[in-house]
Formats: sequence, C-alpha cells, structure tokens
Amino acid sequence: MCGIFGIYGHPQSALMTYYGLYALQHRGQESTGIVTCEKDEITGKARFNFYKGIGLVADVFKDEKIINEYLKGTSAIGHNRYSTTGASNKANIQPFVVHYKGGNLAIAHNGNLTNTRSLRNKLQSEGTIFQSSTDTEIILHLIARSQKEDQIEQIKDALTQIEGAYSLVILTDNKLIAIRDPYGFRPLSLGIMPDGSYVVASETCAFDLIGAKYIRDVLPGEILVIDDDAIKTGDLKSYWIDKKVERCAFCIFEFIYFSRPDSKIFGENVDKVRRKLGKLLAHEHPAPQSTDEDKVIVINVPDSSNTATLGFVTESNKLGNNVKIEIGLIRSHYVGRTFIQPQQNMRELKVKVKFNTVKGVLENRRVVIVDDSIVRGTTSKALVKLIKEAGAREVHFRVASPPIKYPCYYGMDFPSQEELIASRLNGDIEAIRKELGVETLGYLSVEKLLESAPKHLNFCTACFTGNYPTPIEEKPEKYEHELNIKEATERFD
Amino acid sequence: MCGIFGIYGHPQSALMTYYGLYALQHRGQESTGIVTCEKDEITGKARFNFYKGIGLVADVFKDEKIINEYLKGTSAIGHNRYSTTGASNKANIQPFVVHYKGGNLAIAHNGNLTNTRSLRNKLQSEGTIFQSSTDTEIILHLIARSQKEDQIEQIKDALTQIEGAYSLVILTDNKLIAIRDPYGFRPLSLGIMPDGSYVVASETCAFDLIGAKYIRDVLPGEILVIDDDAIKTGDLKSYWIDKKVERCAFCIFEFIYFSRPDSKIFGENVDKVRRKLGKLLAHEHPAPQSTDEDKVIVINVPDSSNTATLGFVTESNKLGNNVKIEIGLIRSHYVGRTFIQPQQNMRELKVKVKFNTVKGVLENRRVVIVDDSIVRGTTSKALVKLIKEAGAREVHFRVASPPIKYPCYYGMDFPSQEELIASRLNGDIEAIRKELGVETLGYLSVEKLLESAPKHLNFCTACFTGNYPTPIEEKPEKYEHELNIKEATERFD
Amino acid sequence: MCGIFGIYGHPQSALMTYYGLYALQHRGQESTGIVTCEKDEITGKARFNFYKGIGLVADVFKDEKIINEYLKGTSAIGHNRYSTTGASNKANIQPFVVHYKGGNLAIAHNGNLTNTRSLRNKLQSEGTIFQSSTDTEIILHLIARSQKEDQIEQIKDALTQIEGAYSLVILTDNKLIAIRDPYGFRPLSLGIMPDGSYVVASETCAFDLIGAKYIRDVLPGEILVIDDDAIKTGDLKSYWIDKKVERCAFCIFEFIYFSRPDSKIFGENVDKVRRKLGKLLAHEHPAPQSTDEDKVIVINVPDSSNTATLGFVTESNKLGNNVKIEIGLIRSHYVGRTFIQPQQNMRELKVKVKFNTVKGVLENRRVVIVDDSIVRGTTSKALVKLIKEAGAREVHFRVASPPIKYPCYYGMDFPSQEELIASRLNGDIEAIRKELGVETLGYLSVEKLLESAPKHLNFCTACFTGNYPTPIEEKPEKYEHELNIKEATERFD
Amino acid sequence: MCGIFGIYGHPQSALMTYYGLYALQHRGQESTGIVTCEKDEITGKARFNFYKGIGLVADVFKDEKIINEYLKGTSAIGHNRYSTTGASNKANIQPFVVHYKGGNLAIAHNGNLTNTRSLRNKLQSEGTIFQSSTDTEIILHLIARSQKEDQIEQIKDALTQIEGAYSLVILTDNKLIAIRDPYGFRPLSLGIMPDGSYVVASETCAFDLIGAKYIRDVLPGEILVIDDDAIKTGDLKSYWIDKKVERCAFCIFEFIYFSRPDSKIFGENVDKVRRKLGKLLAHEHPAPQSTDEDKVIVINVPDSSNTATLGFVTESNKLGNNVKIEIGLIRSHYVGRTFIQPQQNMRELKVKVKFNTVKGVLENRRVVIVDDSIVRGTTSKALVKLIKEAGAREVHFRVASPPIKYPCYYGMDFPSQEELIASRLNGDIEAIRKELGVETLGYLSVEKLLESAPKHLNFCTACFTGNYPTPIEEKPEKYEHELNIKEATERFD
Repeated sequence: MCGIFGIYGHPQSALMTYYGLYALQHRGQESTGIVTCEKDEITGKARFNFYKGIGLVADVFKDEKIINEYLKGTSAIGHNRYSTTGASNKANIQPFVVHYKGGNLAIAHNGNLTNTRSLRNKLQSEGTIFQSSTDTEIILHLIARSQKEDQIEQIKDALTQIEGAYSLVILTDNKLIAIRDPYGFRPLSLGIMPDGSYVVASETCAFDLIGAKYIRDVLPGEILVIDDDAIKTGDLKSYWIDKKVERCAFCIFEFIYFSRPDSKIFGENVDKVRRKLGKLLAHEHPAPQSTDEDKVIVINVPDSSNTATLGFVTESNKLGNNVKIEIGLIRSHYVGRTFIQPQQNMRELKVKVKFNTVKGVLENRRVVIVDDSIVRGTTSKALVKLIKEAGAREVHFRVASPPIKYPCYYGMDFPSQEELIASRLNGDIEAIRKELGVETLGYLSVEKLLESAPKHLNFCTACFTGNYPTPIEEKPEKYEHELNIKEATERFD
Repeated sequence: MCGIFGIYGHPQSALMTYYGLYALQHRGQESTGIVTCEKDEITGKARFNFYKGIGLVADVFKDEKIINEYLKGTSAIGHNRYSTTGASNKANIQPFVVHYKGGNLAIAHNGNLTNTRSLRNKLQSEGTIFQSSTDTEIILHLIARSQKEDQIEQIKDALTQIEGAYSLVILTDNKLIAIRDPYGFRPLSLGIMPDGSYVVASETCAFDLIGAKYIRDVLPGEILVIDDDAIKTGDLKSYWIDKKVERCAFCIFEFIYFSRPDSKIFGENVDKVRRKLGKLLAHEHPAPQSTDEDKVIVINVPDSSNTATLGFVTESNKLGNNVKIEIGLIRSHYVGRTFIQPQQNMRELKVKVKFNTVKGVLENRRVVIVDDSIVRGTTSKALVKLIKEAGAREVHFRVASPPIKYPCYYGMDFPSQEELIASRLNGDIEAIRKELGVETLGYLSVEKLLESAPKHLNFCTACFTGNYPTPIEEKPEKYEHELNIKEATERFD
Repeated sequence: MCGIFGIYGHPQSALMTYYGLYALQHRGQESTGIVTCEKDEITGKARFNFYKGIGLVADVFKDEKIINEYLKGTSAIGHNRYSTTGASNKANIQPFVVHYKGGNLAIAHNGNLTNTRSLRNKLQSEGTIFQSSTDTEIILHLIARSQKEDQIEQIKDALTQIEGAYSLVILTDNKLIAIRDPYGFRPLSLGIMPDGSYVVASETCAFDLIGAKYIRDVLPGEILVIDDDAIKTGDLKSYWIDKKVERCAFCIFEFIYFSRPDSKIFGENVDKVRRKLGKLLAHEHPAPQSTDEDKVIVINVPDSSNTATLGFVTESNKLGNNVKIEIGLIRSHYVGRTFIQPQQNMRELKVKVKFNTVKGVLENRRVVIVDDSIVRGTTSKALVKLIKEAGAREVHFRVASPPIKYPCYYGMDFPSQEELIASRLNGDIEAIRKELGVETLGYLSVEKLLESAPKHLNFCTACFTGNYPTPIEEKPEKYEHELNIKEATERFD
Repeated sequence: MCGIFGIYGHPQSALMTYYGLYALQHRGQESTGIVTCEKDEITGKARFNFYKGIGLVADVFKDEKIINEYLKGTSAIGHNRYSTTGASNKANIQPFVVHYKGGNLAIAHNGNLTNTRSLRNKLQSEGTIFQSSTDTEIILHLIARSQKEDQIEQIKDALTQIEGAYSLVILTDNKLIAIRDPYGFRPLSLGIMPDGSYVVASETCAFDLIGAKYIRDVLPGEILVIDDDAIKTGDLKSYWIDKKVERCAFCIFEFIYFSRPDSKIFGENVDKVRRKLGKLLAHEHPAPQSTDEDKVIVINVPDSSNTATLGFVTESNKLGNNVKIEIGLIRSHYVGRTFIQPQQNMRELKVKVKFNTVKGVLENRRVVIVDDSIVRGTTSKALVKLIKEAGAREVHFRVASPPIKYPCYYGMDFPSQEELIASRLNGDIEAIRKELGVETLGYLSVEKLLESAPKHLNFCTACFTGNYPTPIEEKPEKYEHELNIKEATERFD
C-alpha cells in the first residue's frame, strides 16, 4: 500500500505536498519522496527537483531548507511507501524521476500490477535495463517506448498494456496527470485549493489538512490532465484508458482497515461504513447476554477498530443486550521502527510494546473484543493472552470482516497465503477459535460486509472469496528475488 | 514532568530500563538517559556507564550496541525529561552522574523544588559551581557537602534542606535508593521481577511491560534502600526523611491527565478515577437534552479524554438523557517534534496536524466535547472551530476538571499564569465560553474532583485553588535566565 | 576524474575494495560506492549487494558492518567519484547496478565519452529512459540493447559504438571484466593477491596497500575477463575492442598531477617522470642566479609539486646555480568539504586555509616557487601574494608543464575554457606573469614535457596543444543542464 | 596536548575562533568547542552560548548556523582536545562553562597539573562534586571557593594552589583572561586584529589565518586581562601569579614535534629550530659516505620531519658528504579516525594506510631516514620494514631528538613508560637499532638539542633526562580510572 499526492499551480507546492503526505502517512511509513517542477524565470524551461529518503515524512524532510529553499516550483507530486518485508532498496523509493524523449517525467504509484513478469521479460528481451524491482518502473519504460508523438497518447499506449491495480500521479514539464485503473481498485480524489490550484490525493484527509475542497473522485479508467490552461479556465481535460471492463472492483479493505476514518473514499465516509460493519456484526454474532450483576463489556483494539466497536455496542443495546463499552487496551503512541527487540524469553513483549491492558476494567469480566480484521492471527492471539492475564473470565472475539483466505494481488501487503491464519486452518472457524484461545469467535459474513458498503458500487472481495476481478498471471513472487540486487539501507541509515 | 525508573540485581539492567523508560515515554519526550553500575569481575570495583541524548527513548538508544554492549551492569537508573520551553541544554539531561567523596553517584528526579534560589545562592556563596540550571544539581551538592560519614545519612542531611516535590532514584556503587518527598507529590512504585530483582518506576505501566509485579508504593517521606543484602534476604531497608508534614499532598493532576490510564498510582487505577470524573461531570454539567429525532452526540479528545468521555456518556444515559457516543476527532499517530511550521496564513494547521474532524459524524449535530482539562485554551478554541466548520449545529464543552488558575510549583509544566485562560479571564466561565465560541461550557467542581479520587488520601489542588501545601519562595523564574548559559542543541542535533 | 577498483575470488572482497578505494581517494572525493557479488551457498545463484554514499571512503563506510556483514561476496568492484561542480545527484554515484536480460550487471567508469549526445538522442528516440546524467549509463543501455547472445559479445557490441576515454570495471554474476579504451587514455592495472585472487585498479598504489603484486597494465583496447576458470588455471582471457586506432593517447596529465607519485602507470613510476619534469624545467627556465650572500631559495607547493621541485633543485645545482631548497609553504592536513566560507572581506582566507607561509624562510629572500601546473591561476595568484606578504623580495614562478589552453574531453575535470588563465590571456606568458604578480614566469615546453615521459609511448597533449586524438562531437555541455533533474543532496546529507 | 584560542571585542568572535581552532587543529583532533559571550542589547546582561562536539573543528561546526546564528557575541574562547587513549567522555570536552557566585565563567586549558590528586581529595572531602575527570575542573572549583571578592584575586588565589603546566584562556561576563604558568611550559601568544580587537592563541599560525598581528607572548606567570577598557585605551592589564620559580621550563618538545613549523613560539620560529636540529644531527650522526656511483639518499617522514631532513641534507653536503634528498615515503591525506581496522594477518596495514613507499626511489639504495623523534618505536619499525621491502640495501635511522625515556607530566600525551622503546630497552641504542632492524641508528644528544633552541631560554627536557622542573606528586594515573564513570561516545556518535 502507498499514499500518493499531487498539486498543480501553487506557489508552495512542496510544502503542500509535505502536509499532504503527512496526512497520508498511515498509507506508508517506510520511505517518502517529493518531486517539484520549477520553471526558470527567464527561459521558462522546466527543472525537476527531488528529495527522497527512508523514514517518516516529518523525519525525511526535517530540515526546512529542503522544502522551502530547495524544492521550489509550482507543481509537485509525492509518495509514501509502505513497509514491506524485504525490498527496502533506496532505488525503490518513489516518486521515480526520469528523462526520456518527451522530457522530464516523475511518477508515483499506489497499487500493484498483475502482469509484471511477462512485461518485464518482454522489455528485457528488447534491451531494457531495470534499476528497481518495482512494477512502477515498467510503466515508465512502456511510456518511453511508445511510438506515439503526443505524451498523453504515449501514456494511454502504456496503460493499455498493463493489468492490475494502479492509481497514479504523473508530473511532466507542464502537466499534472492523475490516473485510476479501469477497475478503480485504489481510491484517488480531486480537490481544489482556495487559490484555485488543483490537488489530487489518495484520501480526502489530505485535503482537510491543507484546506482544499473535495471536488470529486478521479474515475475508474480516467486520465485526468491538469495544466496551466485548466487552472485558467477551470476546465480539466479527461481522457480514458482504452480498455473495457465489465464492472468496477473497488478495494473493500480500504473501508475495513486501510483508509483513515475521517476520509471519504469511493464517494462514502469511511467511518460510516465502519460503524455499519460493527452494527451488522452485532446482528450476526451478538455479544453474550449481559445481566444486571454481570454486564458484558465490549472493548476496541485502538485505534483500528474504534468505530466498528461503537457500532457494535450501539446495535447490541438496540437489540436489547445491555453491554458496556470500555477501554481495556491502551495503545502506545511511541512505537517506532527502531525498537530494540527483546530476547527469546520475552516474546510477548512485541505486543506489549504496542498495547497494555487496563486491569481494573478487565478483571473478572466477560469481555467482547472487536477487531477490524485478523490477518496472521499472532497479534490477536497475544492480545487475548494479555486480556486473560488481566483477569478476564471469558473472551469473545468479534471480527468486523470475513476471514482473509487469499492473497491480494492489487497492492494490499498481506503476508504469504500460508501465513494467513484463516487460510492455514482452511477457514475452519472452530480451529481458529481454539488457536486464539477464546470462548467464542465470530466473523462478519461477506454478504453483510457488502451490505455495509455503498450498494451501487461493485467491490473486490478477492481476499475473502478468491474471486479475482482480473486474470492473475502465474503466481507472482517478489521481484527482488529475481533481481537479486540489494542495497544496504535498513541498518545503516 | 518527568519519568524515572530504577532496577537492582538484574543481568540486563540497561535493557529493562530501556523498556521501562519506553513505557514512561508520555512523562517526558525531550531527552532521556540511562546509567548503569558495572562491577569489575576481578576487583569488584564499580564503574558507572552512561548514555544520554535529546529525543525519544527509541531514537536515542536506537543502536542496540549502546544497550547490549556498552551499558553493562546489574543495576541501572533512567530518566525521561519533559519538553519544557527553553532550557534544552544538554547539560540538563538526566540522570546526572558525578563523583564525590562517597564514590560514584547518579540521580534522576521527578518533581520541582521550591527553595531552589535560596539554596543555590547559599551554595554559590560557599564556592559551589553550577553546571546545569536544574534544581536536581542542588541535591547533589547538598549530599556531597554533608559532614556525615554514612551515605544514607548524607542523603538524609540533604533532603532535610530541600522543599517541594521530589521523587528520586539514586544509584550508588552498591545501592539503588528510591525516595519520595514527605508530601508525596509525585508517584513512585516498587515492583519485583520474576528473577527476584527489584524495580522502581514512576508508574506501574513500566512494570507491566517488563513483567514485573507491583509490590507497593514508595511512601511519602520514605528512603527505600535496595542492595545485595535486600536481594538475598528480601528485606528492604527503609529510612525516613527527617521532616514533619501535616498531611500528604498527592498531585491530583496525575489522575486527571498526566499518568497513563493503565497505571495504578497512589494505590488507585488511573482509568477508574477518570471514569468517575466523567460521571460526576455529567451530573454537574449535563449534556443538552436529546430527542429521538435529534440525538445529542458526545465526542472525546483522543486519547486524553477517552475514559472520562465514557464515564460521561454512561452516566448521562443512566440519568435518562439518551446521548450517543461518537468518534468525531481523529488523532494523527505521527506527530513529532520536527514538523515544519506552517506560514502565517495557515495558523490553524498546528491543530489540524494533530486532529482531523469526521464530517459525517458532526454535520448538523448538537455536539458535546469532553476534554480532561483546559490549559491555555488555544487548542480547545481551535478544536471548536474545526468542529463547527465540520457542520456541528451546537458545541457544548465539558471539562473533567476545574479551571486551572494557578501555576504549579511542584513539577507540572504549566505555562506562565498569564497564559492560563482561566486565570487570564479571572475565572469568568462566561468569558471563557465566549472565547472558546461554544454554546455552553461546564467545568467539574473541585468538590466533585476530590470525590472522584480515593477519599482517604489528601491531594494537592493548588493549580485550581491556589492553596499550596508548602511555602513558596519568591516567585520562581526559570534558572537559565539567571544562569545565562545556553548550549546549541535544538537546531543542530 | 575517478578511481576504479575490482577484485575477483577473494573471501573479503568488500574489505579489499574498501582499502583499494581508500588508496585511490585522491582520484575522487565526492562520492564512493562498492558492489559485491555474493553466491547463495545452496543454489549458487548470484546476488548483488551494494552501498553508495556522498563523501570520502572512510566516512561513507564508517560502520564496519556495511563492509563485514552486509557486503558479502567473493568478487567486488568500487568507484570514487571526483568532485565536479554541479551534478552531485545521488543518482550519479557509481558503480551503477542494474538488471537486464543477461542477469545482474555493475559498472564503474573512469573517463569521459565524446559522442554522448548523439548516442543519448538515439537511445531516447528508441524509448530509453535515463535516470542519471552520466555517460556511463549509456554504456549500460548499449549492452542491454545488443542483439548478441553472449555477454562478452554484447559488451563488444556496445564498445564499438562509444567514442572517447574509458577505463571500466564490470561485475557480472560470474565475471570481473576490466576494459581500457583503444587509445588507453586512462590507466588501469592488473595485479594478483597472495591468495591467487586477481585485482584491477586505476593505479598501483592500491595494490601496495592490500599487498597485491602488479602483473601488467590492461592494454589499450583490451577486454580482460576474470572468472573462476581464470583463477583455477591462471589463464586470463583477453578480447579486443573492434576498433582500429592509429596510435595510443595516454593522458600525460596523469603523470603531471593526477596520479599518486608512488604509483606506476603506463609502465612507468610517476615520481620518476615528475623529477624529470623538474629537471628539464631547470634547463628551460633556470632560477635566477644565486650568490653566496644572497642564495636563491626554491620552494614547493605541498604536496603536488614536491617531486618536481626536488628535480628542479638538483638540476639547478648540477648546472652550477647553487640554489637552496626550502619549505616555505605549510599545507593543512585538515581541509575538508565542509569548511565555513569566509565573508567578503576575507577572500584570501580560501587559500590561507590550505596554505600558510613560513615567514622566517621567505623574509627578504629571492624565491622560486615550483608548481606542477596552473589551471585557473587564482590559487597561484593568492599564493604569490602570501609569499610577498611574508617578505619575499622577488618571486619567480616555475611551472612543470605547459600552459593549459584547451578543455579536456577525456575526463580531466578542467573548468570551462574561459576560466583557464592561459586561454583567457591567449597564451601570452607576459600577461600571465603580470596577473600573477611575479618577477619571472616559466612554463615547461611541450617538447620537454614529452621528453620527461616514456618515449616509446604516445600521449594525449590536447589540453596544451588542442590536438585531440579523437573527433569531438558538437561542443559538449553538462548533461544535467539538458536533463534538468536535480536531487537535493549537497546541503542535506 | 591541546590548542586554545580567545578573542575579545570582535563582531564575529565565533567565526574567528572557528578559524583559529582550525589552524590549531594539529594540537588536538578528538573534540572541540566554542563559547561566546553575548551581551543583551537592552539590559547589557551577558549570556554565554556554547557548542561542543567530538571530532574535527570543520566537522563539529559544519552547520554554519551554529557559528553565524547561534554563537553570537563579541568575545569567545575555544579549545581543541587531543585524542588520548581512554577518556573520551563528552563531559571532558572543553571549554568548560559554569556559573558561580562571580557570574558565568568559561575556561580552556592546555597543559597538565601535577598535584591534581591531592587537590581533588581535598576538594572532595570538603564536599565538592566532580563531573569530569579533568584537572581543569579543579581550577574552576578553586576559583569558586576562593574567599576573595575580586574575580582576578579569586583566580590568583586558585593559581597559587595548583602545580604543573597550564596555559589558560578564561572568559567571564566582561573579560578575556590569558594565563601562563610560572614555568611557561606551554606557549601562548597575544595578537591584535586589524579592527583593534585582541586575540590569544597557543600558536601564531592561528593569527596568520585570521589576519591578526603577533604582539608578544603571554609571559610565564602572567595573568593578562583584556576588557572593554583595554580595547579602548590599548592598555592591557597584567597581574602575576604569586609564586616564585627559579627559572622557566619551556617545553622543548613543542619545537621538536608538536607546534606547526610556520608558528613562532617562545619567541622563535619553529622551522628554524627544526632545521638546526637536522644540521646538528648531521654533525653528530653523519650519513654513511656517498660515492659517485652509489649516492646515499636521505628521506623524510612526511610531514613531521620535513624541515629537520632539509637541515640534515644541507649540512651533510656542507660537510662534504654529497647525499641526495629524496621523497621515499608518500603520506596519505585522508587518514581519519574511522578507518576500518584490518584483520590479524594484515597488521602492517595500519602503517601502510598512512605511508606508502616510492619503490623507484628506494630500490637498491642506501637510505638514511630522518625522523623527528621515536616514541613507541612501532611506527618506525614498520616504516623500516616497508623501506626494506621496497628494495633499500641499507637503512640508516637518524632521529632529530634524544631518546625519550621518561613520561611527561606536563601535558604531552606520551604512552606509559613501559611502552617507550628507549625506556623499555634501558636506553641501549644498540638494542633499539636491532629492534628497528636498521644498519645504523643515531639520536641527537641533549646538548645539541639545547644548542638548536634559543640559548637565552631555559627548557624542560624531562622526557629525555628525567629532570622534572617541578615536584611530581605520587605517580599519576589517569583520573577516569579513579572516577570510574564512562560515557558511551566513541562508537555511538
């Protein structure tokens, strides 16, 4: 997963991008970068300035001079990269900035292509060199190799060849281009600043921070072009990817977990969907019955299941089961990537570093814990252990989404299928319940999941159902394994 | 405010201190340090190793070698320093490590002395040099200048001369000493590790992380000595500060805001007190009446007022006013000290960087916002503005503590009295209400505040009432102003 | 200018490369990098590890873990990049590491191509993307685009298309390849380690440090291939660039200034040539006549003209003019890239930071200063001023090479032609003398210059004569101007 | 050894101190610091700003903001600390800045006290705390504890109690005070800037860089006070340390090795003394006889013996032995503190990293190597080995000073007596010769050494003769051993 941002026509484009990326930090914490396009005052010639680094936005850009003095220009794009396991090569930090026959080009990508291997093989056999292990680099080569004269045509040419999920922002010498794949897997929104400059961002929370007004989503299959003309006339040009798609496939996991609850994506407020998930969960898998002497308490996993938990409690009470919402887990605000790992005999510290229990709340109680989803199951298991150690008599686990059984090929960074607990245990709920060590376990059904989301839209539920909206090339492995190039970065920066 | 930690008799004393300080990070984010006492295997002679730095625990100690290879030894103390406005001299980072006639000595201090100036003048006139602007250095000089032979007697000698608030951990060549002033302003707890080594910490949440068991609080006026003998026999020696005090004066603000909700301090769970604060607040200043068509919503200020908000809502409903708890503010997890400050015309960004509103929740609603306290009022005001911009029809502000009108001389880092909104507006609630721009405003009364806390204890409420439990020397200024020594640290580290 | 190094078949290939680059530090101080090829113990599959950074070798690789733990493998190449004025983009740091149809490939380049623009235009029009502004990247693309099956053939294919100066080391999954262009502009030597592994380096001083024995130079036009077979049999395979060249054109400036005096290049000891330069200079432009009462003193510019000065003095005395060698200038050992620049009114400090005069030596004397060459003339002028201020009665400037009047297109980083003092003043020696402010000025003639160097070899003297051995494409500009991509590196690393 | 610098009355006092310390870098490379005194424009109150760090001057102060924006003020002092083996605690970095009854005080010290232990014991028994392991801190405590009212009297009071070597610069709220101990062990000079502000520095090379004019040395026993009055009237006040001393004892090793050859110390040019050392050495221990076919060559150890070698060669030729000066050793300019240490089997690399031989010069020759001194003998031995490996037929070692047999208690950082080769081998020249592996070995005699230096002065020759000019307290050990406090700095900065 990643966060992308673009702005065109603003005197402080780098600073706005910095704030935008900061608001999108949750979409990627591994590395970040900003590219600006600066026009020479006399010649009008465009120069691209960029700065990229490993770490959080506020750390990578902590010297104000980078933003204020160095990254000059009136248009910019930026990218936050998610912390995937292996390939933290610096060469993989986006946006990518290159020069080709059409001039300078920078690109930032959120998503994942599904025909990377065949495209890569084809390009290599034609003499292309690869400097990163990302699928994003492939898009650049396809654009550069297009025989078309016009830049937009070159881009269209490239996009017809790629399959999979991609929301893109592209910066050229005189344009900002925002693109969403025909399925619309990943969100991408368009907004406008008070001064009339345009912004695009993965989520609308980036608009809120910089004071931009949300206009609309970039549409599935749309190639939205913002240039000086557009600023002047207010008339943005749209082109369309030349590819027919039966129906869209918005990523429903964006609603479940990934997007910020204060964002609006796919035309709907995220927090609203999450509250509904909690409500329907209370219907499908109610909390055990409270009595006056023995009230069941419901706790959240801060902060990812906060909203779903609210929905669950409200609905439970409406359904006549008078449960009590409580704060039973405290989340540390200071978890960073550099924490010294504990020794063998302190394994559970990994979870305790992030969460601590509130004993007075849990002691001797029947506890319902609501979480947004279960991936590996290791954290859930450790949490249950902590809660029981804090004295809970019973623990009932409620999950506001279905069991995750299939890998995501569209950019959600799930572990390998064998590591998914629901896949490993063949979707056997009773087996999962035992492994987690809880009294009862309930997952939301796929039907109810879809009921929570806007009904006029079509969603990708492949991770739950295995129904992939696009053909998937031979089982993809990570490219760095093929590439076998590794830069010393993690320990030495 | 600060966090302190100590451990005696553990093979990985530095690592445990690192975890302990990590759990106490909320008590001080400016700087941190660890001192260990390492015994030479052959001579048995003690060596003190230390490392200190500006920043968070996980950042300062990010190279594992510091903890694992360098800070060897079986006893250790550590300190987290709060980010006060001016004096971020490196010379002020604790623990202080010195050598005097009694051997090596390290000290870490949470609290604030109230007769610093006269002690400092006296010591200076006798030829003492000061290298820091902290009151903690005074304690060291007093110990060193004591004519007593025995180290404990030297410490007692020093403590009889100082006034004010102090919880201390002291490391010597063969002891760990934990001390709490006779009023017991600041918390300090004693725990035991599974292997029999002893730990002390400002709050019990540090024990939870490292798997220590809480034994009891260090008592007001107690000088608790842990040494090899104590480890062997399990018999800790207690000495007492030679100073009569009518009654204790525990800092009630620790319950209101400062301590973590999952800690137990002053013998009581913090979260329990906070829930009670919320409940009593609902009695004193109820939410406006809900109707079926127009339900009033109650929102928290994450994460400081989470528990109080729960209490407020529960009690409101019990009182028959069917309000709805909602998540109307989202808090960013990535706020750091290095954020680039926005320009003039984006002032409100300072608050937006930390909080964003959830429009779908707030739009067209009557909103009650519950906060734990109001200090300057600037953040509250900005939050109200955000909430109204998100479409709230009305905003009702409820504060789970009384108006803060007086400075704290016991270690709580409030701004100057003129900056306290309740002081500036002479405690005129209506004036504050207008300044905040809310429909109604209600503060908890001092009486109800005290009702929320354990009733058998006596608390310091000076910041609300002006009743200081100890005599206050002439109005204290910051020492660095007197010292006029400034180290280049903030911008250049 | 740059320094390159390669090693094949050594258990500590990264450490040896680190030492080798350290010995070649004088050839490039801006940035450095090392690539190793590590074979998987089980699969035998090759992985490329690399680390690159801005700064000196000892600074970039100051964490031993990078060398010892991270850069594993038994073959490696490394590169030192010279500090040129503009383009310190990180993207330009060598070696370049890429993946193409033939596997992994890393390349390090010393020299400069002369048909870069046309090649670049051609490649771009065919759809190639450029990520750096270096000519080295062009070589990579040409290799990748070759239709040949065999890797050596692909390389030969690429080399026939490029013009200009290039000494290259290339690392592939199972080979180390050392290449010198058909003119042999830049040096490149082959050596062998005590354990039988092979090394190649720009200069033999790298061999001395790691205990390697010099075998021979890589020959002009040679493609020398070192692989496991070569190690086993001792039989290195040579291929030849398919390009006819009338005669070689070794860079004579390597002897004059660039190479270390303890190196052997082009088959000759550098210090021997330099001594001869000094001797012949004494013939062509003798020192003024000494008398017994007024001995002329001869001073060097440490350390670049040390050896030439010795030669000058020896020969002067042999010719009967009894001059005295003295140390009149002291060079600071601590000059770094980060020195804070002085204000307007302290301009000369730039030279004083590097050199100080010894007043007792210079006072009231007639002084001959011998330098290896004059480029811009600014330092020479400032030195003369310092020497006169120290009390020298007369200053006579002797230069152990001819006036530099033409730009170098083969990798020597001279400034633009207008900045060359000899070009700016049209080679008018009297005008240069006046500008420097000296009593007499003598440059070595081109004839004598050639007499100093091995006579059986042919040298490039283009910077003195304008006779370029290869056709020069349209006047080259720096690529970054065309590219207009700039990375924030200089001030923010 | 250390370098100290002070300036009073200059608008850019920090920048001048930076340049001054840069010029004095050879006197200490471990750490450095600058303190400025800044007057508040309105109140006229003095504030001390300081910044200190581990590393070279140009590295510690690489951010210009520290110098230009942070370290404001019109007076300043600075210090370079030598790299001693153990105690690189940050607490030991000078200048020390403290506050005492007399206001702010900063001090920088070059030298070593000889009654530290008894003073320290006395002070500790009186209740003094020590925060560093330096003798300099003792001076501060003595000043602070003086009963005198006047600051100069307090300083005089302190100085009568200390024994040993000290050149000091002290900065107070309104004065710069320069002090030299009554023996005058270490140099200290006074100069004046073009704008009338005064400077003091360990060596005059610091004056040259900033354009100051040398006035005179601070005299042994002098307390020179520079204040606003002095600037106005040009009338500096001198006070005198109340201590009778029979005769001065200037450190002769400053001439032999430590000071820069372009400095004037003790009223004499350093390079002049060094040339004389070389000349007299040629008398006492001539080179072997040259013949026309077999000229003996004389090489220097760059750069420390450059001047002595010149003297040796000149005199040898004057004496009729026609030897030839050559450059046989090349010194790397890039030796830093972070070089990765080689493995067991590459021990000699430690010397090779610093020096490489010029084979063409040494091969088959009879070689005289002139060095300034021999301390441990390990480097000398390794150099001889390298020279022989380069093919030298014979190596004759000439040392421009006597055998070092005794420790220095006055600030020269020699290793322990057992490590001094001349002491270890009981001054047996033949034994040393064998250990070094040379054909002949000659040390300059003490008589000739004294003949080289200004004859009207009296020098300390204790390291050669054991005649210590002051009583030496019980054998001193390093304080950190007593202190047993160690800060993690070396590996983690």
